[in-house]
Amino acid sequence: MTTGGSDVVDGQRRALLQGVAGAPAQSPVDRRWQAAIITVSDSRARRGAVEDSSGDAIVARLADLPADVVIRQVVADNADEIGSALRDAVERADLVVLSGGTGLGPRDVTPQAIRPLLDYEIPGMAEAMRREGLRGTPHAMLSRQVVGVARRRLVMVLPGSPRAVIEGLDAVWEALPHALRLLSGDTAHR
Amino acid sequence: MTTGGSDVVDGQRRALLQGVAGAPAQSPVDRRWQAAIITVSDSRARRGAVEDSSGDAIVARLADLPADVVIRQVVADNADEIGSALRDAVERADLVVLSGGTGLGPRDVTPQAIRPLLDYEIPGMAEAMRREGLRGTPHAMLSRQVVGVARRRLVMVLPGSPRAVIEGLDAVWEALPHALRLLSGDTAHR
Amino acid sequence: MTTGGSDVVDGQRRALLQGVAGAPAQSPVDRRWQAAIITVSDSRARRGAVEDSSGDAIVARLADLPADVVIRQVVADNADEIGSALRDAVERADLVVLSGGTGLGPRDVTPQAIRPLLDYEIPGMAEAMRREGLRGTPHAMLSRQVVGVARRRLVMVLPGSPRAVIEGLDAVWEALPHALRLLSGDTAHR
Repeated sequence: MTTGGSDVVDGQRRALLQGVAGAPAQSPVDRRWQAAIITVSDSRARRGAVEDSSGDAIVARLADLPADVVIRQVVADNADEIGSALRDAVERADLVVLSGGTGLGPRDVTPQAIRPLLDYEIPGMAEAMRREGLRGTPHAMLSRQVVGVARRRLVMVLPGSPRAVIEGLDAVWEALPHALRLLSGDTAHR
Repeated sequence: MTTGGSDVVDGQRRALLQGVAGAPAQSPVDRRWQAAIITVSDSRARRGAVEDSSGDAIVARLADLPADVVIRQVVADNADEIGSALRDAVERADLVVLSGGTGLGPRDVTPQAIRPLLDYEIPGMAEAMRREGLRGTPHAMLSRQVVGVARRRLVMVLPGSPRAVIEGLDAVWEALPHALRLLSGDTAHR
Repeated sequence: MTTGGSDVVDGQRRALLQGVAGAPAQSPVDRRWQAAIITVSDSRARRGAVEDSSGDAIVARLADLPADVVIRQVVADNADEIGSALRDAVERADLVVLSGGTGLGPRDVTPQAIRPLLDYEIPGMAEAMRREGLRGTPHAMLSRQVVGVARRRLVMVLPGSPRAVIEGLDAVWEALPHALRLLSGDTAHR
């Protein structure tokens, strides 16, 4: 959760490469984010997080943001539990990534659970995720990704498969740091 | 409404061609769906269903799903009548296709009538329909297609022209059987 | 606000070029629209409209619609003021273009202020705007454009930069006259 020494060095190296040497250590370029990763799955909730391969994939990808994982949780496909997990997460994380429960099965309730808790949605990010998914399979049009903001935290609801979470993150990756900076109150033009 | 003898033969022939000979008759490959087709149009409601060319086009296309039409109805552009027709349809059909009333005219109320009755929407299917429509004309961005789920039935709201209904069905065609299987509780991976 | 003599001549010339010579002067081809342009910006509201370059860009572009600007206003990033401005605008204009406040900053509230006041949305127009924006920068997926109808007036919420407003108008330009005609009750096929 704390920024280790090597990260600071990496940050300075990055700053130098980008020609902004001398930027203060708190410069947005160096900013590390705090992420909550919530896997929604009846079966994984029963087995514990030991086999949460989608969660593992998200952790690995967010390390490049760079983001530290401050919450990692597996909850059942239950709207109350999902809502409760989100409320906890926005207290501590800049970015909340939920995965699972976006399909059309009888237990798929994540979008319905999350949408009423958002202050507003960012439809272009969910559209981008679905468009990316459609490059792989027409079934991607059935995925009900949701992206929005709750208490000035970025909230993303992704499908549950490891492939789908990576596709979803990739689809919005280039806009993600900018989104997090704007939500954190950094409105400087860049 | 019942599966006739020739349909069973067709199903077996299809199964053989697809290399799944010996599959039980209830195999998803053979599954026939039940469809309700509701045309929303003041003028056609007055004339009766005799000239419902959009409805005819939907019937013809859905035969390939394969789906049997268990309800076919023409209702006026009136939110109460449209809502009432939907409520009846989800009692008996796996798939409800409404067409008409998605434009910007003063009598176009179908999306407003249907959306409050959905348990949730599937935005990617409506997005796919609009994207397909835009290949033909920029006016397609004005069409307010809606796709969603009510009581675990798939509900699609398409524009009223015969061309637009076929474009809309084509745009989601490859994902349609999978959507219907998931909604019917068949969650086997395929 | 009134159609000047040269506009009538231009209309007739256009009609002739399009092979519809002899069309009545009130033909939709000649129709001029009335537009309200509302810029949402704390800083510009403080300075007055003197530096409203986004508003200027919209005025210039809408002249080609053709549309006369009957309301031009700069309001602060305040949901009540924005809502009030919209309510006034739909009394007098066929088309209301708001710009600004669609981002993720703490003061960006325009979509939240406008959406509850719409009778319905036209999602395909906002999707088209975001798709157009993404050709320029992946950050465009963060823009929360909204297009919809309030009291049979077309309402568009665009991002605040001069570049973004032009991109947004361009993205829907070819469908705009048709949308305005349908909303004004002209349902003749063209």
